Amino acid sequence: MSAASDAGVELLVCTTCRRGQPSDAEGPRPGEQLHDALRAQWLPDNVRLKPVECLSNCSSGCTIVLRGPGRWTCVYGNLDAAIHAPVIAEGAAKYRDAPDGLVPWRERPEHFRKNCIARIPPLEASE
Amino acid sequence: MSAASDAGVELLVCTTCRRGQPSDAEGPRPGEQLHDALRAQWLPDNVRLKPVECLSNCSSGCTIVLRGPGRWTCVYGNLDAAIHAPVIAEGAAKYRDAPDGLVPWRERPEHFRKNCIARIPPLEASE
Repeated sequence: MSAASDAGVELLVCTTCRRGQPSDAEGPRPGEQLHDALRAQWLPDNVRLKPVECLSNCSSGCTIVLRGPGRWTCVYGNLDAAIHAPVIAEGAAKYRDAPDGLVPWRERPEHFRKNCIARIPPLEASE
Repeated sequence: MSAASDAGVELLVCTTCRRGQPSDAEGPRPGEQLHDALRAQWLPDNVRLKPVECLSNCSSGCTIVLRGPGRWTCVYGNLDAAIHAPVIAEGAAKYRDAPDGLVPWRERPEHFRKNCIARIPPLEASE
């Protein structure tokens, strides 16, 4: 593991996402279900799972963010709690191991390749 | 101006955005044109314009990001250099004046209300 990856990264999950469900749907929201699936999923070392209320990517949820100091912040969407927890774990490990957070396109999980919502350069780079 | 807004905010612009143009289109890219329009636009004090090569919101460009230390980072899309520079300036001023970067929905420019791509909480909040 590189020195950069020692700092750890955060995996944010939008827990309020409805994923297209009507607002009066009963039961836990898809975003909360994704958070639960990730809590039950093995996650790589130094990847901290954090719930967030609304990442405002409502039309392309469910949504996660990978970020960390000195790294690009990456937003991924169209995630499904029923199938994507292992994919997210794989993508998070690769993100953690990339010192600047930029994983080469071919090395990303297929869902990440096709469902990148945005990426934002590290704040530190612009000082 | 509040103490928080004194720190200044950044206005990132994706300069590589094609905004749906074919890859062999000639002339400057729409993202570069948006950056040029913002350079020519009056911008609020303490808002620094910064070009970025690819914010990876390609399907909903052109794209900007507003961010700053201790603030939510906000991504907005579907922007057009021909009409949106004043709208972006207005939205940037309101963002700057909101200590945490969260502008109440009704106070945002209409384009910002309808074209929020994602929002990400400040890194500091999670330490």
